[in-house]
Amino acid sequence: MAQFINRKEDIVAEAVDGLIAMSGGRLARLDGYPHIRVVLRTDWDKSKVALVSGGGSGHEPSHAGFVGEGMLTAAVCGDVFASPSVDAVLAGILAVTGPAGCLLIVKNYTGDRLNFGLAAERARAFGLRVSMVIVDDDVALPDLPQARGVAGTLFVHKIAGALAENGADLDAVTRAAERVIAGTRSIGMSLDTCTIPGAQKDARIPAGKAELGLGIHGEAGVEQVDYSDAQTAMEMVTSRLAAVMEPGRRYVALLNNLGGASVLEMQVLAHEVRQSAIAGQLDFIVGPATMMTSLEMRGFSLSVYDATTDDLMALQSKTPLAAWPGVNRIADVAVIDLPDGLRPIKPIPSAHPATRDFIIRCCESLIAVENYLNKLDARTGDGDTGSTLATAARALIAAIDDLPLADHTQLYRAIGLELSQTMGGSSGVLLAIFFAAAGDAASSGQSMVASLQAGLARMQEIGGAQAGDRTMVDALEPALAALPDGVEAAARAAREGANRTADIATARAGRSAYLSAEQLRGQIDPGAEAVAHLFEYLATDAEAMRQASSE
Amino acid sequence: MAQFINRKEDIVAEAVDGLIAMSGGRLARLDGYPHIRVVLRTDWDKSKVALVSGGGSGHEPSHAGFVGEGMLTAAVCGDVFASPSVDAVLAGILAVTGPAGCLLIVKNYTGDRLNFGLAAERARAFGLRVSMVIVDDDVALPDLPQARGVAGTLFVHKIAGALAENGADLDAVTRAAERVIAGTRSIGMSLDTCTIPGAQKDARIPAGKAELGLGIHGEAGVEQVDYSDAQTAMEMVTSRLAAVMEPGRRYVALLNNLGGASVLEMQVLAHEVRQSAIAGQLDFIVGPATMMTSLEMRGFSLSVYDATTDDLMALQSKTPLAAWPGVNRIADVAVIDLPDGLRPIKPIPSAHPATRDFIIRCCESLIAVENYLNKLDARTGDGDTGSTLATAARALIAAIDDLPLADHTQLYRAIGLELSQTMGGSSGVLLAIFFAAAGDAASSGQSMVASLQAGLARMQEIGGAQAGDRTMVDALEPALAALPDGVEAAARAAREGANRTADIATARAGRSAYLSAEQLRGQIDPGAEAVAHLFEYLATDAEAMRQASSE
Repeated sequence: MAQFINRKEDIVAEAVDGLIAMSGGRLARLDGYPHIRVVLRTDWDKSKVALVSGGGSGHEPSHAGFVGEGMLTAAVCGDVFASPSVDAVLAGILAVTGPAGCLLIVKNYTGDRLNFGLAAERARAFGLRVSMVIVDDDVALPDLPQARGVAGTLFVHKIAGALAENGADLDAVTRAAERVIAGTRSIGMSLDTCTIPGAQKDARIPAGKAELGLGIHGEAGVEQVDYSDAQTAMEMVTSRLAAVMEPGRRYVALLNNLGGASVLEMQVLAHEVRQSAIAGQLDFIVGPATMMTSLEMRGFSLSVYDATTDDLMALQSKTPLAAWPGVNRIADVAVIDLPDGLRPIKPIPSAHPATRDFIIRCCESLIAVENYLNKLDARTGDGDTGSTLATAARALIAAIDDLPLADHTQLYRAIGLELSQTMGGSSGVLLAIFFAAAGDAASSGQSMVASLQAGLARMQEIGGAQAGDRTMVDALEPALAALPDGVEAAARAAREGANRTADIATARAGRSAYLSAEQLRGQIDPGAEAVAHLFEYLATDAEAMRQASSE
Repeated sequence: MAQFINRKEDIVAEAVDGLIAMSGGRLARLDGYPHIRVVLRTDWDKSKVALVSGGGSGHEPSHAGFVGEGMLTAAVCGDVFASPSVDAVLAGILAVTGPAGCLLIVKNYTGDRLNFGLAAERARAFGLRVSMVIVDDDVALPDLPQARGVAGTLFVHKIAGALAENGADLDAVTRAAERVIAGTRSIGMSLDTCTIPGAQKDARIPAGKAELGLGIHGEAGVEQVDYSDAQTAMEMVTSRLAAVMEPGRRYVALLNNLGGASVLEMQVLAHEVRQSAIAGQLDFIVGPATMMTSLEMRGFSLSVYDATTDDLMALQSKTPLAAWPGVNRIADVAVIDLPDGLRPIKPIPSAHPATRDFIIRCCESLIAVENYLNKLDARTGDGDTGSTLATAARALIAAIDDLPLADHTQLYRAIGLELSQTMGGSSGVLLAIFFAAAGDAASSGQSMVASLQAGLARMQEIGGAQAGDRTMVDALEPALAALPDGVEAAARAAREGANRTADIATARAGRSAYLSAEQLRGQIDPGAEAVAHLFEYLATDAEAMRQASSE
C-alpha cells in the first residue's frame, strides 16, 4: 500500500515541519535534525513545571499534536515506532526545564523507559529537577507485569498538563500523573493491521476475524476473535474493561480511533459504548476522536479512568489544541418532536368544471403520446420519458376531484404536491418545484404568465439547466416568453425550441450529458418534445384554452 | 473489508445517536427515525438566520459534526452517499427556521439539489423565508458546468455560520455564502478507494497509481496518474489549483483528510503544501484535519479560497465544535538552538593509582569470564552477556586515564557516561543509569553504600525489574544490602541470590520473559552470575577492596 510520504528517513522531520508550519506560530522545533526532533511551545518561559512526552512516531497526533497551552510543553519524536535517542530526550528536557522542574510522561516500552530514564539522569546531573512516570494502561495481557502504554496516556497529558499550567509544583503534578496512570485502563480492537512505511503490510487478520488486545506498533493482538458487528466488538472490549473496573465507581471514557476507522464507524462505536454493559459506570467521554494512532490501523481503543472531581475540571479546562476533542457528559439522545406541517395539508377540494376538463384534456394529450415519447427517449436516454409523464397524468386525473379547482392560486401548489408524490425521478421533483414556485408567485398576486415564468426560473435554478442544455427548458422557456401573445404563438415558439434541440451536440444536464455528439445530433430532446406537443395541443383546442384562462 | 457497523440500514441512525449522546447536550435530533434523521442545536431559539446543510452520509464529520454555535443550525442526514428525502429536509427547515429565515447549503449533486430545492419550496408555502446556495468547488472536471461540491463546503459553513451567529440577515448571509462559493476551488487525490457498507470494495487503483480529481462518493477519479511520493502528488494537486487561481491574489487553504490517510501522512502533505508552487499565495490554512470524508478513502483534498479580511475574521471566530480545526497562519518553521550541555562535558581527568588499579582489576575479572557468561546466557538468552560486559570493561580500561579517578563523586557519573557510549543494548543503558543515579546520590553527600543503593533503585524503576524477576537485580540487591557488613558478606549474598535465579521458573522482565518454565529451571541468570562473580572476586581481593574504600 502506497503512502503519502517521501523518503522513509525523512518522514518524521517532514511531518514535524508540517505540524509546526500550520500551528500558527504556537510551535517551534529544536535545531537538531535529522536525529533530534523535538517540538516545543513558543510561549514557554520555564516558569512552570514542564511536561515532556514522546516516543516513536506513527501515533500522531500523539505526542507533538498535544504540545501547547494546558497540555505538553515538548514532545520528542523518534522514528516510526522507534524510541528517540537519549540525546534527543535530553535536548527536549534541557530546552524547556526551568527551576520548577520537569515531568517526563513515558509509555511503557523498554526503549522509551531506558532512553527517557537515562536522559533524566543526565538532566539531573545538571541540577535539574526531573521526575518520570510510566503509563501502562493496556489490559490486553492481564498477567503481564509490564503492561503497555496506549491511548490512556491522553488522560495523563491533559490532567497533568492542566495542573502544570495552573502552577502546581513538580511533586503535585507527578503525584497526579501517577494517580491517573494507576486509575486508567485501556484495550483496543482492530479489523486490519497498519502499514509500516517501507515494509510490506502484514495481512495477518483473515476475513471474519478481528484482533483484540493489540498494541500500537503493528504487533499482533493477544487473540484473534470472530468479528461480526460493532455491537459484539464493543461487548468484547467492554467486558475486558469491566473485569478491571471497580463496581460502583464512576469513570470517564476515552474512545480513540487507531487511525483507519472512518468517522462514521467511530460514531457507531460511540453509540455502542452507550449500549454496553459498562455504560452505567461511564459519566463522561473524550472523543470519539483520533488521538493515539497506530498509523492507519483500522481499529479503535477504549480507555476508562475513575476521575475525581478535580480531574474532571482538569479534563474540561481550556486548551487551544485542535487535537484534543474535549470531554463531554454522556447523555441520553435528546429527541425533539417533528415540526408541524411536515405532512402537507391537503387543499380543500372545490369544483370548477372548465378547469377540470382542461386539466384532464392536457393529461390525456400526454397519455396519448406515451409510446412516441418513450421511443424518442430511447435514442438518447433510458426510454421512459413517455411513461413517466403518462403515469403522472393518470395519477392527476385520478386525483382530479381532490384538487382545489376553483382556487387557481392553490391549484398550482396542489398539482405540484400531487406530482411530487406520484411522478418518480428527478423530472417529478423538478415539475413539483415548477408548480410550487408558480403557486408561490400566484399567491403573491402575479399574473398567470409571470407565475409560470417564476416557476420556470426556480426549476432552472434548482435543476441547473439553461436554454441550450438539451432539456425541456429549451421548449418551455420560449413558450412562456411567447404566451402573452397567445397560445398559438407559445405553441410555435415551443415547437421551434424543441426542434432546435436536435442541433445541440452536447447535453450539459441530465442523462444525455453522458452521450457523444454523434449520438445526439438529429434527435429532439423528449422533454422538450413533450412541452411542444402539449402547447400544440392547447393551440388546436382553443375552446379549452379560452375556458381555462377565462377567470 | 469488515467495518465497525451493525445492520447496514441502521448505520446512519446509530451514528447520529452516537454523535448526539457524546455532544454533552449540545445536540438533539428530530423524532423521525428511520427516515428523517435531522441533527440540530439544542440552544437554538430561531432568533437568527438558520443554516441547514446535509446530504448523503459517509462524509463525517460533515455535516452533523459541524452543527453548533457559529456553524450549522441543523444537518439533514441521508443514507450513505444518498440524498435525504424532501420530507427530511423540510422537517429540518421547519424545525429551525424563524422570522429571520433559513439558508440551505447544498453540495452540487442532482439528488441534493432537487430534494433540498423542493423542500425549500414547501417551506416557502408556509411563509418561511428560505434561500439556497449550491457549492460547486471541485475543479477535477474543468469543462463540466456542474462541478461537484466537496470539502470547500467547510468554508461556507464557517463563514456563513459566523455571520448568522453575529445576527446578519438572510440576504447578507446568502450573499456571503455565494461569494465564498464563487471563490472556492478544490481538488482531491487518493491512493485507495473507500468501502461502501455492504458492497465489495472497488479495488480499481493499481499499485503505483493514484486517482486525481476524485469525488467523495467512491466515484472514479478523472484520471489515474503515476504515484511516486507525497511531493509529486502535491505538485499535481496544486498545479490544478494554480490553473484556476488568480495571480497575485492571497488565499486560505484547507487541507482535508478523505478519511483513511494517517495523521502522519497528513502532516507530511501539510509540509508539501508549504513547498508547493502555490505556497506563495497561501497565507492561512484550515487543517490538516478530517472534515469532509469519503468513508475511509486513503486520500486528501486541498481547497483554496481568496478570503477577504472579513472572511478571515469569520474563519477565526470561536466555535465549540471539535470537528472544526481552526485556521492558522502558515508560518516558517521556527527553529530554536539546541540547549547547552547536550554534549556531556567530559570530567577533568585526575590520578588516583589505587582506584585506577581497582577498576582495572574489576574489569579484567569480568573479561576473564566472557566465554563462561556467554555460554550461560546461550541457554536462556541470546548468548552475549559475557561479550557485552567484556566489551564495556575493555572500553573502560582504555578510557581509564580520562576518568576523574581522584574525585569519587564525579567518577560514578563518568563511568555511567562511558558505559552509555560503549556498551550496547538495554543493559548498557541500565548500568549507565545505575552509575549516574549513584553519582547523583554521592554528590548530595550520601555514603558509598547508600549511593549504590540509590543507583539500584533508579535502575529498577526505569528497567522495571524487581527481585525475583530473574535479572542481575537478584544478585545486586542482596549484595548491596549486605555490603555494610563487608565485601565478603556481600559476595555471599550475591552468590545466594544468583543461585536462587535457577529456581525461578518465570522471568518477568528482559528477554527470558519469553521462555517457558522448562527452559528456565536450573539455569542461573547470566546477569546475576556476573554480579556474583564480581563480588566474589572482590572478596578474594581484599587488598583492592581496602584501597578502594579508603577515602
